[in-house]
Amino acid sequence: MSFQPDPLWQSIRDEVERAARQEPLLASFLHMTVLRHACFEDMLAFHLSSKLACNVMDGRALYELLCEGFDADPHLADAARADLTACFDRDPACDAYSTPLLYFKGYHALQSYRVTHWLWNAGRVSLALFLQNRVSESMGVDIHPAARFGRGILLDHATGFVAGETAVVGDNVSILQGVTLGGTGKECGDRHPKIGAGVLLGAGAKVLGNIRIGEGVKVGAGSVVLDDVPPHVTVAGVPARIVGQSAEDMPALEMNHKLG
Amino acid sequence: MSFQPDPLWQSIRDEVERAARQEPLLASFLHMTVLRHACFEDMLAFHLSSKLACNVMDGRALYELLCEGFDADPHLADAARADLTACFDRDPACDAYSTPLLYFKGYHALQSYRVTHWLWNAGRVSLALFLQNRVSESMGVDIHPAARFGRGILLDHATGFVAGETAVVGDNVSILQGVTLGGTGKECGDRHPKIGAGVLLGAGAKVLGNIRIGEGVKVGAGSVVLDDVPPHVTVAGVPARIVGQSAEDMPALEMNHKLG
Amino acid sequence: MSFQPDPLWQSIRDEVERAARQEPLLASFLHMTVLRHACFEDMLAFHLSSKLACNVMDGRALYELLCEGFDADPHLADAARADLTACFDRDPACDAYSTPLLYFKGYHALQSYRVTHWLWNAGRVSLALFLQNRVSESMGVDIHPAARFGRGILLDHATGFVAGETAVVGDNVSILQGVTLGGTGKECGDRHPKIGAGVLLGAGAKVLGNIRIGEGVKVGAGSVVLDDVPPHVTVAGVPARIVGQSAEDMPALEMNHKLG
Amino acid sequence: MSFQPDPLWQSIRDEVERAARQEPLLASFLHMTVLRHACFEDMLAFHLSSKLACNVMDGRALYELLCEGFDADPHLADAARADLTACFDRDPACDAYSTPLLYFKGYHALQSYRVTHWLWNAGRVSLALFLQNRVSESMGVDIHPAARFGRGILLDHATGFVAGETAVVGDNVSILQGVTLGGTGKECGDRHPKIGAGVLLGAGAKVLGNIRIGEGVKVGAGSVVLDDVPPHVTVAGVPARIVGQSAEDMPALEMNHKLG
Amino acid sequence: MSFQPDPLWQSIRDEVERAARQEPLLASFLHMTVLRHACFEDMLAFHLSSKLACNVMDGRALYELLCEGFDADPHLADAARADLTACFDRDPACDAYSTPLLYFKGYHALQSYRVTHWLWNAGRVSLALFLQNRVSESMGVDIHPAARFGRGILLDHATGFVAGETAVVGDNVSILQGVTLGGTGKECGDRHPKIGAGVLLGAGAKVLGNIRIGEGVKVGAGSVVLDDVPPHVTVAGVPARIVGQSAEDMPALEMNHKLG
Amino acid sequence: MSFQPDPLWQSIRDEVERAARQEPLLASFLHMTVLRHACFEDMLAFHLSSKLACNVMDGRALYELLCEGFDADPHLADAARADLTACFDRDPACDAYSTPLLYFKGYHALQSYRVTHWLWNAGRVSLALFLQNRVSESMGVDIHPAARFGRGILLDHATGFVAGETAVVGDNVSILQGVTLGGTGKECGDRHPKIGAGVLLGAGAKVLGNIRIGEGVKVGAGSVVLDDVPPHVTVAGVPARIVGQSAEDMPALEMNHKLG
Repeated sequence: MSFQPDPLWQSIRDEVERAARQEPLLASFLHMTVLRHACFEDMLAFHLSSKLACNVMDGRALYELLCEGFDADPHLADAARADLTACFDRDPACDAYSTPLLYFKGYHALQSYRVTHWLWNAGRVSLALFLQNRVSESMGVDIHPAARFGRGILLDHATGFVAGETAVVGDNVSILQGVTLGGTGKECGDRHPKIGAGVLLGAGAKVLGNIRIGEGVKVGAGSVVLDDVPPHVTVAGVPARIVGQSAEDMPALEMNHKLG
Repeated sequence: MSFQPDPLWQSIRDEVERAARQEPLLASFLHMTVLRHACFEDMLAFHLSSKLACNVMDGRALYELLCEGFDADPHLADAARADLTACFDRDPACDAYSTPLLYFKGYHALQSYRVTHWLWNAGRVSLALFLQNRVSESMGVDIHPAARFGRGILLDHATGFVAGETAVVGDNVSILQGVTLGGTGKECGDRHPKIGAGVLLGAGAKVLGNIRIGEGVKVGAGSVVLDDVPPHVTVAGVPARIVGQSAEDMPALEMNHKLG
Repeated sequence: MSFQPDPLWQSIRDEVERAARQEPLLASFLHMTVLRHACFEDMLAFHLSSKLACNVMDGRALYELLCEGFDADPHLADAARADLTACFDRDPACDAYSTPLLYFKGYHALQSYRVTHWLWNAGRVSLALFLQNRVSESMGVDIHPAARFGRGILLDHATGFVAGETAVVGDNVSILQGVTLGGTGKECGDRHPKIGAGVLLGAGAKVLGNIRIGEGVKVGAGSVVLDDVPPHVTVAGVPARIVGQSAEDMPALEMNHKLG
Repeated sequence: MSFQPDPLWQSIRDEVERAARQEPLLASFLHMTVLRHACFEDMLAFHLSSKLACNVMDGRALYELLCEGFDADPHLADAARADLTACFDRDPACDAYSTPLLYFKGYHALQSYRVTHWLWNAGRVSLALFLQNRVSESMGVDIHPAARFGRGILLDHATGFVAGETAVVGDNVSILQGVTLGGTGKECGDRHPKIGAGVLLGAGAKVLGNIRIGEGVKVGAGSVVLDDVPPHVTVAGVPARIVGQSAEDMPALEMNHKLG
Repeated sequence: MSFQPDPLWQSIRDEVERAARQEPLLASFLHMTVLRHACFEDMLAFHLSSKLACNVMDGRALYELLCEGFDADPHLADAARADLTACFDRDPACDAYSTPLLYFKGYHALQSYRVTHWLWNAGRVSLALFLQNRVSESMGVDIHPAARFGRGILLDHATGFVAGETAVVGDNVSILQGVTLGGTGKECGDRHPKIGAGVLLGAGAKVLGNIRIGEGVKVGAGSVVLDDVPPHVTVAGVPARIVGQSAEDMPALEMNHKLG
Repeated sequence: MSFQPDPLWQSIRDEVERAARQEPLLASFLHMTVLRHACFEDMLAFHLSSKLACNVMDGRALYELLCEGFDADPHLADAARADLTACFDRDPACDAYSTPLLYFKGYHALQSYRVTHWLWNAGRVSLALFLQNRVSESMGVDIHPAARFGRGILLDHATGFVAGETAVVGDNVSILQGVTLGGTGKECGDRHPKIGAGVLLGAGAKVLGNIRIGEGVKVGAGSVVLDDVPPHVTVAGVPARIVGQSAEDMPALEMNHKLG
């Protein structure tokens, strides 16, 4: 239980209390999932366990596991808070913290991945793969548990996102639906992209191989990137070429998908 | 209950009765979902509630809500009928009305969106967002409840389709899997595409920003459209350029994905 | 029950027994799904029925059906074994047979499709369509039951894959996420691609119309292919053009996504 | 929807609103089951459908059926209200209307029986038998759908209560757990007891054959009654004998289990 | 599959087909549970697995187990048929074979016990105890797996029936609800009653200790029997005494609960 | 987590590990329910939550509540251990601690009641009544949350047991199926029996009113007790009379149901 003031959790509770009063059909769900919990972490663990439980994985066992994860590694919840703020700040269709928290599958998939990453590092490989599969089935997002993601990530709409075993994503990156951070070749080893801080990856962009996408790069929708990209440029096309300097310092924060 | 003759509903019942006789393993499902209902609207509400119910949303409450929607706004069912005819007319793999009605998730997602649109307009924002999430999870389709869609829409295969808050889609449009009608920038306001009547959007096409795609345009598969497109042309490429006049008046009706 | 030695099944059991000992939270699932079964076929039927059962399709009835399929047509299980070996050989992130078997939805979708193909050929069209829909909902993969697939197929990550009614895929093909093997036009008849043996289809590639992709071709990520492609070349771009000879004889086996 | 004032329904809502505020763990259930409904009848139909649904009987279909019953025959709800008042008045452990309504399986079983009786009279014999079985399984109460019960019945604790096809129970009867109103012989026809108004049937009492138990009789716990009993006496023993006059005019209302 | 004519199975199918046509709400259940099965044994195994499956015991695994039992020991199904005929012949409220088969929990409990007996004899003690518990929970009947029961048993209404480890019940016995065949003392060994053929045990009768109840005895409702009873007499009372000769040769067949 | 040696928990684990190895069909359940837990209390909370969860009460929320109860009041688990030992010592059909723990609904009902008693005393009346109802539905046992029970209680077979609001049961009592500890009259206040230590209540015995059953009394099966009973006698009959001295000092420990 948290004894310090927690303004984010308080905002979420206020929003959800309003919603529960206004929408009787959701009152049940909102009480069970949010209002009866003591802190943000318990609430998130409960909600993710509702999403990931299935006929072969008991919801109670999963909830315990997720609570254990948030307890064991405080970075999980810190990142979950930073990702939530990223959704709120960058998505104009999102005017409440509780909206992505409760209803954006990109947010759920990312926090679920963070738990698989903790399991993977703890040597619980089978369980990490089991949950990766559940996330892929129920959210259409396939992030390898060994991939490394920074904080403040927006995974928008999310369907079809794939990130491979040795992919690395820096802080404050925004990723649209249908993006692939894929490997090349069938040998083991470091074979997936490294995405710099503040990068914006447009819808359907494919970034393939152990290449570096520099800080503040904008990758146009539908582009296929096969080579390193220097910082603060815009790339587009199949295959992608540099089409200009980024108009913004951190394109991920502006979400401007215009090229050039 | 409908006292007028309803030939579409009668055709569906006939098809389903045949199927129930031929396939014992489906007889249960077909009786429960179709044959015991008095009209098309009840049947559709029941089927969608089967698809969208989950461990935190009771199927009975959802079925009541959907019936309430079809009752309150007859345009919902009118559009559902027009969309069904569109599937039947345009998809060569579809030789019965009951096939898309029962088994095409693009059809289910579109009708579910229509209900979220009714809820959104009625000020029931939380419930609309809850159901948008359910559609995204269970069908891989993410249509913002505030988006506006005409009638006679074919959403084929559907996985990965995204349409943003201010997107507008005209009548008789055909949309293949993986299409994005996305916004640009992080400011609120009108920021998504306007798609003219009869447009064909090929697989994986991305249309971004508050741009107009004229009537009868064909957008090639995998294209990325960032600018207005005049009526009755074909565009293709990343970024998309005009590659010819549409060979058809309404490409959506012909489903010819050849370019030029 | 199989009385001959079955080394693949024995390897799977050994891997799973180790995992069950190491991960108590999965012991339940692993015992129920794998260890208590007498042979590979029963195990696979059980696992797929867990994935495809829903509130309108009883898991017991589905399990019976899948067992009946594997029994009636031994090619189903032969192909399932060849596909499993393909995952193991070509995916560097996969170091155990049980990993794709239990956790890769591309593998599950492909084996489910194989059962729908058997049903379709047996004239059980409604049931085939029902299950096609379940696969599309729960795995984001939409393969028409009438499509024809060879053996040794890798369907990697899988979200968004679509293959139409008259598509044909040769042996030893590798297919990444977001690929479309689509038709063109609204007339019935042969209208989908024919993919040669050993072809590699990169992430998000769209191949449209009744065209032939020759043996050993590599199709770059994000490409849109609208014309025949001769054997052993690499094609890329929107629309796709030949950009070189394949460096590998069978690109599907090497999974090298570099162009040229 | 009811436009007249309905003080019972208002009392129930007030009690339940208080409970929902005091007990977060029940808020979900209380909102879904009680507070979101427009009238007593809908609420009761919903709650009974939660109790009786099972893996072969869809909750939505059952809820529809129960609403249809309460609509078609207003006596069902009238009796349900009278029975509720009986619980409130006679059971000292019950200090709120919502307690038996929500939590007493004797009350649930009796109202479920009333629906089976309506179905039986409407010729829907199979469905009546199906639900009789569900009540027997989930509440341990076995009342034949053809039996006839008056109003103001208290079925206290209820486990093991059995009433046969031609049993008749008058108004304002109180029945404790383990009571049997059984037939004798294997011939069809009128073969079960007729219980007069105001009778108190003690725990475990067996009343067998087509006999009359007069108005205001008290049957002691554990008694076996095989012969007619005149009004306003107390019977006890195995077999039962008259042991005195009833001290109360209507023993059912006083619930005094003392003999003599 | 059975190739011999099976008139009982044919009668059941005919009755169920009629019911499915008359009652749409049950058509689903009747198709899934009865009509799609090839023989009586499969149908019964399926129906019992619906009753006994729970959140910790998969319905598929249970169905397999029950099929295995009926296959391994043909006496199970022979007895199930004889018990069904007993219900039909002796219960005047039962005018179709399918009624007890589908809807009488006494019948379901007895057939479930027969499977636990087979498991117990095969040394699968834990599984037998697990299922005994499921029967006790879902039907209120507690028969120890080691008890021995003959054929042609009617277990009417059934709630509260208990039979201990060394109880033996002969052929053609009729047992009403609330009966106990109990042990006495805390030592192991033979300590439960032996019930002769054709005995009728009235509602709530308790028979305790290693005593013999002779052939054709009638035990009055609510009686407590603590000593041996010679054949063809009627006993009644607490404790039970001989009150007359049985008017019938086999009271179980006549179901006459009158004493003397 | 418990760091002291806990021989009972160790015995249970050993028994369950053996059972899991011998019975593959239960391995799933036994791992999930017993083997993965750190202590007796967690295991018991998990198992009871499996039994009591339902479509309106989430298993996770219930499991949390039960853990909270065992944590807040260590007497709950102490009594649960003493009751388990009572089953083991007094029931000759029980040769392992894990048998009643996992499979005896009387044991489950008693431990569930103990939790409702804790809730009742903490003022959480609605939740206590909700769970009382769940126990009554799923186990056929109806114990008022305000009743008071000592330790070392055996509730054997259990179907139909009822204990009222002001009932008190001393230590080391044995209670057979169908027993009622009932009130009399409709006034509030102390109106249920007080059962002394070591009492044996035979099957179907009814004890009614605010009377005292002295220490070491044996109440014969089927008896109806309406008056105080002095210590160490045997009572039997309807109504019950003293029929002798108890042959045993503590009849509950000997389970000898012979009279006199």
